[in-house]
Amino acid sequence: MDVAKAERIRIYDVARVAGVSVATASKALNDTGRMTDATRTRVKQTALALGFRPNAMARALTQQRSFTIGLLTNDSYGRFTLPVMAGINEALVDQGVSVFLCGIEDDAALGKIHVDAMLDKQVDGIIATGKRIDRRLPVDLSELPLPVVYAFTEGPADAVTLVSDDAQGAREATEWLLGLGRQRLVHVTGPDSFASVSARAGAFREAAGAAAAVLHGPWSEAWGHAAVAQLWQQETPPDAIFCGNDQIARGVVDALRERGVDVPADVSVIGFDNWEIVAAATRPPLTSVDMNLKELGRVAGRLILDLAEGKPVEPGIRTLPCKLVVRQSCGGDMLARPNRQEELQGI
Amino acid sequence: MDVAKAERIRIYDVARVAGVSVATASKALNDTGRMTDATRTRVKQTALALGFRPNAMARALTQQRSFTIGLLTNDSYGRFTLPVMAGINEALVDQGVSVFLCGIEDDAALGKIHVDAMLDKQVDGIIATGKRIDRRLPVDLSELPLPVVYAFTEGPADAVTLVSDDAQGAREATEWLLGLGRQRLVHVTGPDSFASVSARAGAFREAAGAAAAVLHGPWSEAWGHAAVAQLWQQETPPDAIFCGNDQIARGVVDALRERGVDVPADVSVIGFDNWEIVAAATRPPLTSVDMNLKELGRVAGRLILDLAEGKPVEPGIRTLPCKLVVRQSCGGDMLARPNRQEELQGI
Repeated sequence: MDVAKAERIRIYDVARVAGVSVATASKALNDTGRMTDATRTRVKQTALALGFRPNAMARALTQQRSFTIGLLTNDSYGRFTLPVMAGINEALVDQGVSVFLCGIEDDAALGKIHVDAMLDKQVDGIIATGKRIDRRLPVDLSELPLPVVYAFTEGPADAVTLVSDDAQGAREATEWLLGLGRQRLVHVTGPDSFASVSARAGAFREAAGAAAAVLHGPWSEAWGHAAVAQLWQQETPPDAIFCGNDQIARGVVDALRERGVDVPADVSVIGFDNWEIVAAATRPPLTSVDMNLKELGRVAGRLILDLAEGKPVEPGIRTLPCKLVVRQSCGGDMLARPNRQEELQGI
Repeated sequence: MDVAKAERIRIYDVARVAGVSVATASKALNDTGRMTDATRTRVKQTALALGFRPNAMARALTQQRSFTIGLLTNDSYGRFTLPVMAGINEALVDQGVSVFLCGIEDDAALGKIHVDAMLDKQVDGIIATGKRIDRRLPVDLSELPLPVVYAFTEGPADAVTLVSDDAQGAREATEWLLGLGRQRLVHVTGPDSFASVSARAGAFREAAGAAAAVLHGPWSEAWGHAAVAQLWQQETPPDAIFCGNDQIARGVVDALRERGVDVPADVSVIGFDNWEIVAAATRPPLTSVDMNLKELGRVAGRLILDLAEGKPVEPGIRTLPCKLVVRQSCGGDMLARPNRQEELQGI
């Protein structure tokens, strides 16, 4: 590639071509200073013709804003981060604000490097995301001289934090199963060390009754298989299984089919995450709780903008509602549900 | 300090010793930017003490560099982009360079906004990634006044482009199946409109013989099921199926199990992508071709740095080798393969 082509047009080049000083060129482009209209126009036309873009840093020095937000993520897999980021972009792009994504991969040293780079680029704020609301990132953002919004990761007590409403999502799923006439509900979920697991299990028990069993295991299809093997040793196996994520649910559905148990005729199954690639490939396709990650990203984007603009934002944890996306794995009359259209659109 | 040694001191070393970012060190030495006098003095003294002597060319480049690379992606799902990005970050973080990620979601208007933002932030270069080597991004980067590296997306004829070696990956998989003694090989893959599909199918036919069947369909588990139904109507079904991606392979393995066909005893199956979440959950776990996306990202990072620093880089398409990751779905004696250890580490 041509090196000359890689060189960037600077204010100096504009000034030289327009035949004015750098100071005059700068003033002309900023609509300040004293000069003839002809000079100002000539400088602006020259800048346009050369493809000159005013240095973002120089602009930031006067406006105190870089129109850049840093997104720090600890989710190397991206399943949570990418939809959140899409939402953030949606909220910010119309404001001329762009987003820096830095993955820190649970590495404190890498986290520090990226935070330093963000400060150096004078980002207007940082959105910090993880995979668990009960885990802090390996880098402390609480003393930074700029606003921070936390999403799916634990922040300090006075932080602005966003999280999906696990309890509400689990309650909706459980009530949906009860509404279908199911009577023997079981919750097969992830390790009980996760705050989200406790929140979902608590809401499940509240709706299904304290006697309803909750089985904990790893976040895997294999655990779905193992849980079915365990449950079908009982005299009266369940007629509905609400799973802690879609991978467990897929294992459950596969295991039931292999036992000749019909889903949804004999047993209704609901997952959590509404991870399209898993939910849609399950046979039959999986009804699942969607955490509305894109909307959570939009809210995070609006909040960080408000903070960057100095608007008052109440600190604390904001929970955003989940939504049940109904497919075929729990059966029943889908038409009975009033907001079916929105759900189907969500598929 | 001798001259040869001083030549090797980089701005990065000055920054590290002075305890500031590379960009701050650069600004301090160039008497630009905003910082305390104490910081500027400390950086200058550090540079003096280390014998940092930028030559004229390096200084010019340093002055014009933002130590930021833009990563433009059209892969909204992130399955390809995130490993690539991890590799890019690995290559750049030690150079004090950070990465801007912008998703353009196949939207030309959004693409233009993000490219403008990148230019505005004066990124030193752009890495453009997509999902297909035979599709261009919806935004033209060929006239930008800065270096661009393309990965998994089509660039102009004189571009620097990176792509996995589909043919070599397919050849390795096919030869592995032949080496196991399999004789009736079939390739079940994606739509023939994809360049990667043609490349893989061509290599498969070359190794397996022109008579070996290639079946095209969608990139889904459902197609894996349908293909097995079709193949098992034949009088002599295959004893080895090489699939175009892991999702098709998973469908194939599930369909075979449901027909009572043993994998790997009766039929060997190999996938493509080595997508951990699918390959590991398949029963039995899937042998698959890994595209080495992280290494591809590292190479892209090094190339964009070279271009940003004005070093000569040969244009053209660079193909990076794939690697077969052996799990249980194709059977045979894993010990027979000389580089078994590396493969197992790749799992």
